[in-house]
Amino acid sequence: MATFLSLCMERGLTSVSIWSSEIDKVGEAVALTSLRDNGMTVSGYNRIGPFVPKYIARAEFELERAARFGADHVFLFTGGITEGDRDLNSARRRAEEHIARLLEMANKVGVKLAIEPLHPMLAGDRTVITSLSQANDLCETLGPGIGVVVDVYHLWWDERLEAEIMRAGRAGRLLGFHVNDWLIPTKHLLTDRGMMGDGIIDLPGIERMMRRAGFDGPVEVEIFSSDWWAHDPAEVIDIAIDRCRKLFGQDMVR
Amino acid sequence: MATFLSLCMERGLTSVSIWSSEIDKVGEAVALTSLRDNGMTVSGYNRIGPFVPKYIARAEFELERAARFGADHVFLFTGGITEGDRDLNSARRRAEEHIARLLEMANKVGVKLAIEPLHPMLAGDRTVITSLSQANDLCETLGPGIGVVVDVYHLWWDERLEAEIMRAGRAGRLLGFHVNDWLIPTKHLLTDRGMMGDGIIDLPGIERMMRRAGFDGPVEVEIFSSDWWAHDPAEVIDIAIDRCRKLFGQDMVR
Repeated sequence: MATFLSLCMERGLTSVSIWSSEIDKVGEAVALTSLRDNGMTVSGYNRIGPFVPKYIARAEFELERAARFGADHVFLFTGGITEGDRDLNSARRRAEEHIARLLEMANKVGVKLAIEPLHPMLAGDRTVITSLSQANDLCETLGPGIGVVVDVYHLWWDERLEAEIMRAGRAGRLLGFHVNDWLIPTKHLLTDRGMMGDGIIDLPGIERMMRRAGFDGPVEVEIFSSDWWAHDPAEVIDIAIDRCRKLFGQDMVR
Repeated sequence: MATFLSLCMERGLTSVSIWSSEIDKVGEAVALTSLRDNGMTVSGYNRIGPFVPKYIARAEFELERAARFGADHVFLFTGGITEGDRDLNSARRRAEEHIARLLEMANKVGVKLAIEPLHPMLAGDRTVITSLSQANDLCETLGPGIGVVVDVYHLWWDERLEAEIMRAGRAGRLLGFHVNDWLIPTKHLLTDRGMMGDGIIDLPGIERMMRRAGFDGPVEVEIFSSDWWAHDPAEVIDIAIDRCRKLFGQDMVR
């Protein structure tokens, strides 16, 4: 974690998303010091969920920890439908009830919750929220304190994308923007995301939608990829920054 | 092809979808005789597309061949976005123009066209139509002679599914119903579909939606699976029929 953060700092980056599991590896004190020493603010905090019975106890801990790290938002990860169950509609209703309960807790702690709709190919085992429309509907029902994160990988194909980004923007609930790319062919459902520019997603087009919708936060690189994980981290960061500059312009890198 | 058809006939099946490429292997006369000898009617005819420049000449041939085989409907396969292009919206508009032209041809020949929305994970390289909403919108614009085929694999995750099936039903444009299952984990984007009952799709639930929407056609089994392709075809058909009986009731098998 410290190595990664200093690599980011050396390149002038000032904001990062973090994983609770990574904090556990080094301890909170070390993690907080690493972030402070590298001048990093925390964008997203991963995560609350999957929504299995024992998660509620952990949820309060995660929310408070996210607050200690000054995170802008905490990701909700619903998980899929229960083993042996096939009723997606009920699973969606249950997830929404969980989120309503979490929002009360988060509002007390004073951190925002983020719904990140995942790709429909992850429905069933990893999420029950598979479109930005669904996420927007849910945020509308629940009220303040909760917003959405747009990850191009999960949403680029959706014919409703632009309309739903605008809708989220109007409601002031665009919390984050994640970039990567969709490779042809895609060899694995979870760990074969591409580097920006290597796939077929119209990244500048979607970035423009986000800006038009009023989003002024950072572009966050998130590439789940066994290929890229095998590369030298410094090289990966350099390539990612270079691609972002080319696709989105100089001033987005921060 | 003849072997497959006699296996179906021995089990009391009376309707099948066919592939133009399979007809090419044995010749039209033999294919027509095989179908007639086995008392089989043709449901779907695969296919027109991908919409690359040379497909139009072939399209007329396919439509006329589909008519000779008495096919109920001909599948449109848009293909993805063009190599090097990333503009999904333009690709969608171009595909819609192609489909409008094909519909004129199909109406002259007297066969129906079928849009089968494919899973979003196939957007980009195999299709630009990734939801039943999109397909319904397009049919509404184009008018009579074109309808939709609902494949559970492609659409089960969509929160709009029930509403869009009902909408298609009201317009009398439900042409087909394909079943299979979504496996956890899914190992391959194209060839890892499951046998009905082995995955997490609520098959009886979706079948009830189709019936409520007025669909009275056959349930068609379509399992793209390197695992099942490696099995003895007779065994696969027996298992598929057994599963359909259990999931949908006795009287659906025909």
